[in-house]
Amino acid sequence: MEKTMEKIVALAKGRGFVYPGSEIYGGLANTWDYGNLGVELKNNIKRAWWQKFIQESPYNVGVDCAILMNTQTWVASGHLGGFSDPLMDCRNCHERFRADKLIEDYLADAQGAAGPAASASAASASAGAQDVAPGPADGAVDAVRGAAGDGEDGTHGVTSAVAPMDVPIDGWTLDQMKAFIEEKRIPCPSCGKHDFTDIRQFNLMFKTFQGVTEDAKNTVYLRPETAQGIFVNFKNVQRTSRKKIPFGIGQVGKSFRNEITPGNFTFRTREFEQMELEFFCEPDTDLEWFDYWKSYCIGWLQALGVKDDEMRVRDHSPEELSFYSKATTDIEFLFPFGWGELWGIADRTDYDLTQHQNTSGEDLSYFDDEKKTRYIPYVIEPSLGADRVTLALLCSAYDEEEIGEGDVRTVLHFHPAIAPVKVGVLPLSKKLADGAWKIYEELSRYYNCEYDDRGNIGKRYRRLDEIGTPFCVTYDFESETDGAVTVRDRDSMGQERVPIGGLRAYFEEKMRF
Amino acid sequence: MEKTMEKIVALAKGRGFVYPGSEIYGGLANTWDYGNLGVELKNNIKRAWWQKFIQESPYNVGVDCAILMNTQTWVASGHLGGFSDPLMDCRNCHERFRADKLIEDYLADAQGAAGPAASASAASASAGAQDVAPGPADGAVDAVRGAAGDGEDGTHGVTSAVAPMDVPIDGWTLDQMKAFIEEKRIPCPSCGKHDFTDIRQFNLMFKTFQGVTEDAKNTVYLRPETAQGIFVNFKNVQRTSRKKIPFGIGQVGKSFRNEITPGNFTFRTREFEQMELEFFCEPDTDLEWFDYWKSYCIGWLQALGVKDDEMRVRDHSPEELSFYSKATTDIEFLFPFGWGELWGIADRTDYDLTQHQNTSGEDLSYFDDEKKTRYIPYVIEPSLGADRVTLALLCSAYDEEEIGEGDVRTVLHFHPAIAPVKVGVLPLSKKLADGAWKIYEELSRYYNCEYDDRGNIGKRYRRLDEIGTPFCVTYDFESETDGAVTVRDRDSMGQERVPIGGLRAYFEEKMRF
Repeated sequence: MEKTMEKIVALAKGRGFVYPGSEIYGGLANTWDYGNLGVELKNNIKRAWWQKFIQESPYNVGVDCAILMNTQTWVASGHLGGFSDPLMDCRNCHERFRADKLIEDYLADAQGAAGPAASASAASASAGAQDVAPGPADGAVDAVRGAAGDGEDGTHGVTSAVAPMDVPIDGWTLDQMKAFIEEKRIPCPSCGKHDFTDIRQFNLMFKTFQGVTEDAKNTVYLRPETAQGIFVNFKNVQRTSRKKIPFGIGQVGKSFRNEITPGNFTFRTREFEQMELEFFCEPDTDLEWFDYWKSYCIGWLQALGVKDDEMRVRDHSPEELSFYSKATTDIEFLFPFGWGELWGIADRTDYDLTQHQNTSGEDLSYFDDEKKTRYIPYVIEPSLGADRVTLALLCSAYDEEEIGEGDVRTVLHFHPAIAPVKVGVLPLSKKLADGAWKIYEELSRYYNCEYDDRGNIGKRYRRLDEIGTPFCVTYDFESETDGAVTVRDRDSMGQERVPIGGLRAYFEEKMRF
Repeated sequence: MEKTMEKIVALAKGRGFVYPGSEIYGGLANTWDYGNLGVELKNNIKRAWWQKFIQESPYNVGVDCAILMNTQTWVASGHLGGFSDPLMDCRNCHERFRADKLIEDYLADAQGAAGPAASASAASASAGAQDVAPGPADGAVDAVRGAAGDGEDGTHGVTSAVAPMDVPIDGWTLDQMKAFIEEKRIPCPSCGKHDFTDIRQFNLMFKTFQGVTEDAKNTVYLRPETAQGIFVNFKNVQRTSRKKIPFGIGQVGKSFRNEITPGNFTFRTREFEQMELEFFCEPDTDLEWFDYWKSYCIGWLQALGVKDDEMRVRDHSPEELSFYSKATTDIEFLFPFGWGELWGIADRTDYDLTQHQNTSGEDLSYFDDEKKTRYIPYVIEPSLGADRVTLALLCSAYDEEEIGEGDVRTVLHFHPAIAPVKVGVLPLSKKLADGAWKIYEELSRYYNCEYDDRGNIGKRYRRLDEIGTPFCVTYDFESETDGAVTVRDRDSMGQERVPIGGLRAYFEEKMRF
């Protein structure tokens, strides 16, 4: 079975997982709407994250902060100064490009041809080769946050005028990129000519105006990440939750980045949702906690069914690390279009709280009343893209199975905990509607269920397989007398007889994760 | 007990329900962040809505649409042309005011003094008197949507040059407002002079730019309501869910309105969350469904503990109705600052789908394959503000109780289904940590729980009462041998002994709603 994006996008649209946004108006570039099944899938995944990272964790609590924040937040975080893409125009065809992306693609091609650029950094080369550059919810922003104090071109520590091949491209200066593009005479990917303007920085935050006049005083930005709402509230949450270090604060919410090249379905979008944890710990305990959360994240993905050969964990090399970071790991998933980052886990040291303390003038230190010491806590940040992990779990679940005599069924093997419809209730005949409907009503109090009385049972099973429904309850003529139903399992296609009164307990057990 | 906003805001901030947004930077006007308890409360309320309106309803399914939509959406809905506030400046002190609000306040004062303006419409007068004008998530937008085809000043059906006292103010033209303000020589509320500029319309949508250049082509708006994402996807959802009319589509999500005068804590904010249902039905069945959903909404609030004397249901008079609406009802709650709208329920006829059909050129009709008829469905819209109902349920739950000998406890009587912390687990002594912690871990799989071993039991009860925790489990020395614990009820303060193995079933029963 070949698993392609084409098949997955077609299923997503056809069955109500994801539609193109504003479709009746011809869409709006790279926006997507979750349909009747997609909203259930994504909500279940967000709940599964909240359950394991907040509810069941004795360390963590949650918050839900506003998308619109005081602009000083973005001064402190570095987003206002350094969160930008290097853009240039082709003078011939007037298309606009990201200079770093152009170089990455050039190096990847050269590497593919075993050319002299084979020594380019692993990060850029691997990203370029698979056409999946780092994007929202990932390590890219770390480089940016850190760049705040390092000059307005958003680079740090690189001063040579020659393109430094051992430094990742996002560490190059604009001049170095320009020089490289000129030296290699890289052509325009659109028209093939080589005639580019200078490179300039384009800030990726969406800007708007709060209040009546559209001036600098009223300018606000849509948050490019949920993390800063947590840092800004560190003191508030510590006080009201009475938590002692180590503890963490998690948040699920929308962020916005004005990406120049979004793409790959819902993998990279300008409007996206994040599930971020900022875990605060004592200095020198950070690397232990980094390992703890890295394992915890991997375990969460595995528990939801991600297989080992679909996942890889990539530790950043010392050269790739932001200057303030002691360790960073990406958890990547093998999409049909290549490896793409789901989770960025970073040891951010005391960088963020120090930046906010310096910018706000508020004391953000923590006093350990047992050890009688005061310090700025270190931060471990596991940052997961909600749309990305939803797409990953959809891809992971997709299967086409031969089930004898050349027959093939399409099936989504979702873990029951995240399946959009958990139980299909099927009367064998429309005459059995009363009894079946009672079961549907009772189970609907606990699970999202579907009642389906159209077509033969085999066809109903197939349709429910295709949307990933783990269990079908068939109410038949015997049910009227023996008070039991047949429960059919999506994956094994096995059936067993279960008393109606025992269904709730039966499913409760199966839904655990 | 006097229930004041001051007390509620202080509790909210002190216990982690709501903090001012971006507080370490001096805030950002009227933004708020939900803290460690607030996020749980609001999430529980959103889940309770989803459970009753989507999961348990055999009629409805959900969606989750993008905040950024194609601009044609707002042409069709009327928001681009007519969703605006009438503003004017005081030439003397340069403060800016909403002209309609100024007139409302003037009329309310006049009414209070039994003056000649006592015949002003009930809607404006009552709103003015309590300083709670209609705001986000409410009827105001209905008037606006409807105004699309009626000229750029956002009014319809009013042509007289004289201020028409029997028409609600939001039906007046700008000239009529100006004439009234001049005739009455209404003074500036800020400096007391009477010297205003002309009134001009200010669009309430937040504007931003998607893409590199800040020009008209790239202008997009943050959605001012979630409803339009549903209308635009009507065909998609009907197709993928295979629903037949009557059926509904619900959505929970953020909306943004650049309000000039937000206020009353989280009651009216520029960034807010909505829980909207658009219920599609056959023409001529609409008024029945309108009654059905009106009762359903009232029942939902009552089930969550809203008392009859805190709630009122206000049917709009024929003069107040938007021209396309056959019926509209507001469900209001008695906040400490006065009555405020929570839920707007409107029979919107076929207005919205017709507007989108005309603007997009897509056929949005529905074919009834039993009756062999084709029609544009009618829509019943119950639209609830998530932040408002969260604030309402917080206010409703608040109590200060005398509990003998002059002692007073502060308690939040949340329904267990929405309580942010559902169970407190309290070891009687720190020596009993092992057994108590096991219970905490097991219950945390199902509920958000708190483990508290600090201070005497009485103090722990009080703290957990103040954050609305319905149950406390005390693990004592006897528990070690009898395998049972004491469960204390927040409201009755009664205690009963429950076997540890029976706790899950015990709580399951209590959490139902």
